[in-house]
Amino acid sequence: MKAVVLLSGGLDSATAGAIARAEGFELYALSVDYGQRHRFELEAAARVAAWLGVKRHETMAVDLARFGGSALTDRIEVPKDQPADAMAGEVPITYVPARNTVLLSLGLALAEVVGAADLYLGVNAIDYSGYPDCRPEYIRAFEAMANLATKASVEGRLRYRVHAPLITMTKAQIICRGVALGVNYGLTFTCYDPDPRGRPCRRCDACRLRSKGFAEAGLVDPLTPAP
Amino acid sequence: MKAVVLLSGGLDSATAGAIARAEGFELYALSVDYGQRHRFELEAAARVAAWLGVKRHETMAVDLARFGGSALTDRIEVPKDQPADAMAGEVPITYVPARNTVLLSLGLALAEVVGAADLYLGVNAIDYSGYPDCRPEYIRAFEAMANLATKASVEGRLRYRVHAPLITMTKAQIICRGVALGVNYGLTFTCYDPDPRGRPCRRCDACRLRSKGFAEAGLVDPLTPAP
Repeated sequence: MKAVVLLSGGLDSATAGAIARAEGFELYALSVDYGQRHRFELEAAARVAAWLGVKRHETMAVDLARFGGSALTDRIEVPKDQPADAMAGEVPITYVPARNTVLLSLGLALAEVVGAADLYLGVNAIDYSGYPDCRPEYIRAFEAMANLATKASVEGRLRYRVHAPLITMTKAQIICRGVALGVNYGLTFTCYDPDPRGRPCRRCDACRLRSKGFAEAGLVDPLTPAP
Repeated sequence: MKAVVLLSGGLDSATAGAIARAEGFELYALSVDYGQRHRFELEAAARVAAWLGVKRHETMAVDLARFGGSALTDRIEVPKDQPADAMAGEVPITYVPARNTVLLSLGLALAEVVGAADLYLGVNAIDYSGYPDCRPEYIRAFEAMANLATKASVEGRLRYRVHAPLITMTKAQIICRGVALGVNYGLTFTCYDPDPRGRPCRRCDACRLRSKGFAEAGLVDPLTPAP
């Protein structure tokens, strides 16, 4: 059985990929270069894909930065040191318009071509930044649409399932699950705004969620610099 | 009011754009270079966008050809001179995996960035090639998903509507409607497999549907060569 896994290079998608592999799927990985502020994520995605032993890894360029509207693609400053309740409030400026819809659409195209009925992605609706396209109701709506969208589904050859195995897990639970599956989180990359050498800022929402997750799991992040 | 219109360069999307304009929208056009076999479509899209007087025209490159799986992007031969009942049967080889889902996803991203609630596309489920992502149930499912996907919709600022005004029209009706709105179909391009100078083959499904449409409308296609 084949599955497409969306790999961003981050901790969550690496774990989702490890879960898909543990469930017995042959993996086809898709990463999307959508005009992120830095390349470290995509380099991490390639490392994670190699570690997962995927059958094929595609990196597709789609220049969402051109449309603008996000701190992750524009020259808008990434928020730092936000209080925890700010993270729980409205959708932050790091939101990229329709990103997961574009990513899943490309994943669906790849899935149809390779004959995979299963798509895995590492979205999470607990320790997350409040993005609308990480919620269970969104994932279900995408799945319903996908099954009306393609030749393979309307001809009855594939029934798509969109798996978001981390969606109700805390960051600590995700990390524990990944560690149990042997994921080396030293291969991953999380920060929204690293320095030019690729060192995480440790102050953006993504860095802080990661750090809180390792702390709550009682584990040391392999990306922690030596003291 | 703003609307995003997907412009392929073909007859249908030009008509959908003219309808959106007639309904009073300020237009943002999106074309997608997905690795089509030829560039004539995209050149036509630029002509149509200029004729419509759009506020902005984006052409986004997304290399779906890389995934393969279609006569429109692969080195697979485009079928010619098919009997009419073959067209009414199963999904043809010119189907591009998940194309309309990728196109609409990019349209959704642009719509969110510019603040447009309305998306127009020229899909048609009558005189068409049998593509699953041209059917009304697909369009409704995409719309439902879109309203769960974005910051603008979950915050209640935009309620997306996906308009497919041609979906139940015959090709002849589409042409009559467009002519009434002043569309110059000489600007458009339809053929799946033109010669290197951009002359339509007149034998693929797209050419034959166009030709049948003009004949049934009792009109002469401005692309018809002089006798």
